[in-house]
Amino acid sequence: MDNSTLRINVQRFKANFEALANIGATRDGGIHRPTFSPAHFEARAWFRERAESAGMTFSIDGAGNHSAIFECAGPGAKTMLLGSHLDSVPNGGRFDGALGVLASLEVIQTIKEAGISLPVNLEAIDFTDEEGTLIGLLGSSAFAGKLTSDDLANPRGGRASLLSGLEKAGLRETGILGAARDKTKLAGYLEIHIEQGQRLIEAGSQLGVVTSIVGLGSYWLTFKGRANHAGTTAMTDRRDASLGASAFTLKARELALAEFPECVLNIGQMHFSPGAFNIVPASVKVALEYRAPDSKSFKNLDKALLDTARQEADLFGLDIDVQPLGRKHPAQMHQTTQIAIMKAAKTLGLDTISLPSYAGHDAQSLAALCPAGMIFVPSVAGISHAPGEFSHWEDCVNGANTLLQATLNLTLENE
Amino acid sequence: MDNSTLRINVQRFKANFEALANIGATRDGGIHRPTFSPAHFEARAWFRERAESAGMTFSIDGAGNHSAIFECAGPGAKTMLLGSHLDSVPNGGRFDGALGVLASLEVIQTIKEAGISLPVNLEAIDFTDEEGTLIGLLGSSAFAGKLTSDDLANPRGGRASLLSGLEKAGLRETGILGAARDKTKLAGYLEIHIEQGQRLIEAGSQLGVVTSIVGLGSYWLTFKGRANHAGTTAMTDRRDASLGASAFTLKARELALAEFPECVLNIGQMHFSPGAFNIVPASVKVALEYRAPDSKSFKNLDKALLDTARQEADLFGLDIDVQPLGRKHPAQMHQTTQIAIMKAAKTLGLDTISLPSYAGHDAQSLAALCPAGMIFVPSVAGISHAPGEFSHWEDCVNGANTLLQATLNLTLENE
Repeated sequence: MDNSTLRINVQRFKANFEALANIGATRDGGIHRPTFSPAHFEARAWFRERAESAGMTFSIDGAGNHSAIFECAGPGAKTMLLGSHLDSVPNGGRFDGALGVLASLEVIQTIKEAGISLPVNLEAIDFTDEEGTLIGLLGSSAFAGKLTSDDLANPRGGRASLLSGLEKAGLRETGILGAARDKTKLAGYLEIHIEQGQRLIEAGSQLGVVTSIVGLGSYWLTFKGRANHAGTTAMTDRRDASLGASAFTLKARELALAEFPECVLNIGQMHFSPGAFNIVPASVKVALEYRAPDSKSFKNLDKALLDTARQEADLFGLDIDVQPLGRKHPAQMHQTTQIAIMKAAKTLGLDTISLPSYAGHDAQSLAALCPAGMIFVPSVAGISHAPGEFSHWEDCVNGANTLLQATLNLTLENE
Repeated sequence: MDNSTLRINVQRFKANFEALANIGATRDGGIHRPTFSPAHFEARAWFRERAESAGMTFSIDGAGNHSAIFECAGPGAKTMLLGSHLDSVPNGGRFDGALGVLASLEVIQTIKEAGISLPVNLEAIDFTDEEGTLIGLLGSSAFAGKLTSDDLANPRGGRASLLSGLEKAGLRETGILGAARDKTKLAGYLEIHIEQGQRLIEAGSQLGVVTSIVGLGSYWLTFKGRANHAGTTAMTDRRDASLGASAFTLKARELALAEFPECVLNIGQMHFSPGAFNIVPASVKVALEYRAPDSKSFKNLDKALLDTARQEADLFGLDIDVQPLGRKHPAQMHQTTQIAIMKAAKTLGLDTISLPSYAGHDAQSLAALCPAGMIFVPSVAGISHAPGEFSHWEDCVNGANTLLQATLNLTLENE
């Protein structure tokens, strides 16, 4: 049999998509499935039922990650992992995460039914709390052995919320911290996800091959001047913090456009102090976030932004206070996975572009563990994390077939 | 007798200054005399005692304005009014307002003692609530017949605070609304005040002749774009409200410096929405205040600022919402008062410059009623509304003597 002609069962894939989209469905066409909400538990139970009725083995690890396993190569073999997540942001869309879990199930079921003999076992995984209701990337970080007791002590959603969530799910902190998988037993990881931007559509491309998941840095930058009466103080006698903050906002954008075309940045908030109509601002605290697809541009952009902030502060006679808020380094997608995906897309006659992912994904946790790769499906109008999130069905099917062929490319070449 | 050689009693003036500065004195050298606080009542009682012991007639009007009257020309004559205010901002300085009331008392007492026969009666007045603990310019607005029942219904310090203050002072709203003085009986108004800026000191000048009290306009300008994921949305696909707000902040300043050198403006606050590190700002609400010394520049600057805001919004693909927050028009100081002050300063051998007042004063209420004028005394480092507020004693004496000579110039020429 020529494996390159193998395709997923489109009808079953679509029926599963619609069944899952009904779980936690909102009136406006979106879904509401925050981690460990009733709808989230219902979606996970549905996943288990689907896996078991397809003859796959179901298992849960200490971090609550749900796996559907097809042990085609036997207990000693490595595992090829396919996955994503079933949780959503509050009032999110039907595609984010769900598409990846559904395609993983469908691909493994297709291979199982075709009776193809692979040298690895296959596992479809639903990672816990990717979206951050509790911590964010909780399941995949724990799976990669990167989650620490500090992370559990200071969770993004608050400690009380974490503890109550864990209790509802029957999970324990020791279990989470002990969920790391043996990386020598992993053959690789593939994830299909919607792009959540409009780069693919703007490029007229049917599929994206992810090169890396961007690194993310953030700062509070406080421009400091002097409070003064906004009437009696001459314009030329002022040390007005708003000028440094404003000039930095414009210059940072120009810097990204001119010198870092693959990077993005955002000034999402400013706090003025004292904040009155008739007082010259003594300080303006600026929320800066930037993302870069590789280590070099990540480092260079970071430096260029801080240099720019200091220059603009100087220009207006201001001081500046720089408060770093942590940094996630870029995660490279493995060369072999990118080639396997491109080869799969070519087999299917699909136009692809290579691009970084500007949002975080479970694949970034896995990249430290084994060769990891991601496939992007076009997002209409780039809308995501909202009920209007939409991808054409044809693109979803193309993506799932690419995941199927890429899995075969990777595992058969692994022999 | 040659009236041009008449001078105030410096020792008495200084003793009075120190006695008054002790009332409500704070540990750091400032004073705390908000309207109708115990210290404010004590200062007003002290004023009454000083006036009566100097043989002047004391009277209170319906708005609580306190007057010390020297009826040198008899009941049918017009009144020449000198004044300022005894209330302070919370934890303010010793000079703001107090200097004007003290100098008014001293000037009238000096004229009275010299036995000069003037064709007008003289009145030193302490206006109620200039600083705005309750309403701001309460006494002088009521005196000018400009205070409305709307102003009383929506006072700056809150309605409950106004009512409790009026009760403590034994005042009634009907009394305030009926406090308007007959303008045909007023010969003029003069006020001496600290500059509260550093224009005089920068010009190396000993005294300021105020040309006008600036008009003041304010707006909330809301730049409106679109909220987007700050990672997945390409920089070129964004409608980022922070860009319009920042560009406007810089351009507005350039506009003032280049085209409106006598005007000032301030961006004192910005509110970002939704205000997250990872979301492109959908809207930024900007607090704009501007001040202009004459009607023409007031109108032109207003238009130029709104045009600039619209241009910058357009440039970044944003919409703009313009919410006016009221407008106080510039109040011209009368030509005859300016000439009388300049002539007085020349008599005393003082260097003067003419300049607008960039802060509000009781004189702006009076300008609608009678020829009004203001004298500015240099403020060291421009500090005001703070304990560090300071003017050199020599400058205060020069100012009081200028007030004396200007009063004589105005009233004797009135004959």
